[in-house]
Amino acid sequence: MAESQSQSQDKASGGKLYVVGIGPGSVEQLTLKAREVILNADYVLGNSTYLDQMESLLGTQEVIRSFMGKEVERARKAVELAKNANVVMISGGDTNVYGMAGIVLEVAEHENLDVDIEILPGVTAVLAGASLLGAPVVTDFAVISLSDLLTPWEVIEKRLNMAADADFVIGLYNPKSRKRKSNFARAIEIIRKYKAGSVPVGLVKNAMRGEEEDQIVTTLGEVMEYEDWVDMSTAILIGNGESRIWKSPKKDIIITPRGYHKKYDY
Amino acid sequence: MAESQSQSQDKASGGKLYVVGIGPGSVEQLTLKAREVILNADYVLGNSTYLDQMESLLGTQEVIRSFMGKEVERARKAVELAKNANVVMISGGDTNVYGMAGIVLEVAEHENLDVDIEILPGVTAVLAGASLLGAPVVTDFAVISLSDLLTPWEVIEKRLNMAADADFVIGLYNPKSRKRKSNFARAIEIIRKYKAGSVPVGLVKNAMRGEEEDQIVTTLGEVMEYEDWVDMSTAILIGNGESRIWKSPKKDIIITPRGYHKKYDY
Repeated sequence: MAESQSQSQDKASGGKLYVVGIGPGSVEQLTLKAREVILNADYVLGNSTYLDQMESLLGTQEVIRSFMGKEVERARKAVELAKNANVVMISGGDTNVYGMAGIVLEVAEHENLDVDIEILPGVTAVLAGASLLGAPVVTDFAVISLSDLLTPWEVIEKRLNMAADADFVIGLYNPKSRKRKSNFARAIEIIRKYKAGSVPVGLVKNAMRGEEEDQIVTTLGEVMEYEDWVDMSTAILIGNGESRIWKSPKKDIIITPRGYHKKYDY
Repeated sequence: MAESQSQSQDKASGGKLYVVGIGPGSVEQLTLKAREVILNADYVLGNSTYLDQMESLLGTQEVIRSFMGKEVERARKAVELAKNANVVMISGGDTNVYGMAGIVLEVAEHENLDVDIEILPGVTAVLAGASLLGAPVVTDFAVISLSDLLTPWEVIEKRLNMAADADFVIGLYNPKSRKRKSNFARAIEIIRKYKAGSVPVGLVKNAMRGEEEDQIVTTLGEVMEYEDWVDMSTAILIGNGESRIWKSPKKDIIITPRGYHKKYDY
């Protein structure tokens, strides 16, 4: 009831562009605000995979499906529609982290778009994965995509070297694709120059996305045994020098201590 | 209706420990799952500030308030209660990112706790801040806390140097406190050795936390003019070499291009 009321109010105001992070890919991991904004939209645009994940929220809105690789076209359409309607552009994970916020704002800037734009954050894949693994990230971390489609490989390599040397916890996105099979192996080789073989590594597939979720807890020394298991949808977390694996009665859990043991006794 | 049903089901099963990331600090930025788990808990433990932010969800649960600096004590209490009840430990932002997941699991490990533990992710402050600023993070990024309470300053300094040298987008947490007034200035000085003065910087206070939200868009060359404005609750985002500021008709927006302009024409 409350939903349909706020819907008519929002529609009356018109002309607003939302970029909405839907999190890992299930409705229960949406923020309350993201859910409300999707329900109240005139138009919902997105990659077909993400729209399917939000299917239970789509009814009265006009849904415009797009595909991987069509990001610029999709952003242009969203900006055009937002001049006269309430438009939601859906982004997987968080809107900022390799998400749609950038390209939508680049297109809006190009047109000097004069409508309200609201970017809504979501749970990014590497942090959904971290939650499943336990607490691998607790302290300083670096996030690196291994896709060299939009970033030169030399830049990626420099970032891998420096993040490993400074002992950041490291999250890797896009470890593999059909065209780039060896990037994962090359990244691990670089990180091993700085981090010990005993450092915990977590591999998570389809984190919090529903039935196909799967995870492996291993170490930097042994991770290449799972190379074939890793695919484009795998989030990878590599601990720092203090991270350890707790073989709990339920499952293997990665813990990176924050440093409380230096201050407290427990 | 659905809520009270699932509540009685969950309570019957008993003995489960949840660590729940509540996001930036308003109910609308909670995930649907986090909200459900809080509503169905027997006990909710947390820092008093975060419990106040969730007040509208607290009714039937037993609420145990704690304070900053009492994290270990609070974690011990949660682990003890979880042996026989449904317990939620609340964490600000995401449970992993400088959150409570680490210390709770450390205490559980110490006791070799044999109950189900579920860690629920949330929107972390630096990504809530990024959304307000536009799209500063879109590509590889590093997150560094300037608090040297639990991490030696030399380690922080090395991370600042390497993250800046590799041109990561950089998110800074805990820039200042009463005891550590100069860490922010020292961090900016280091980053300036590698990044140009024209690189955009966003400062966000109380991002998505309600009425006290505030933000400044400036550059690395000029950010020290706002030094007095920065406090412990300010999230700081520093762009990479391609980031720029769009002076949109509505407000100043930071955009870090993902690299689509290299592939597409728009």
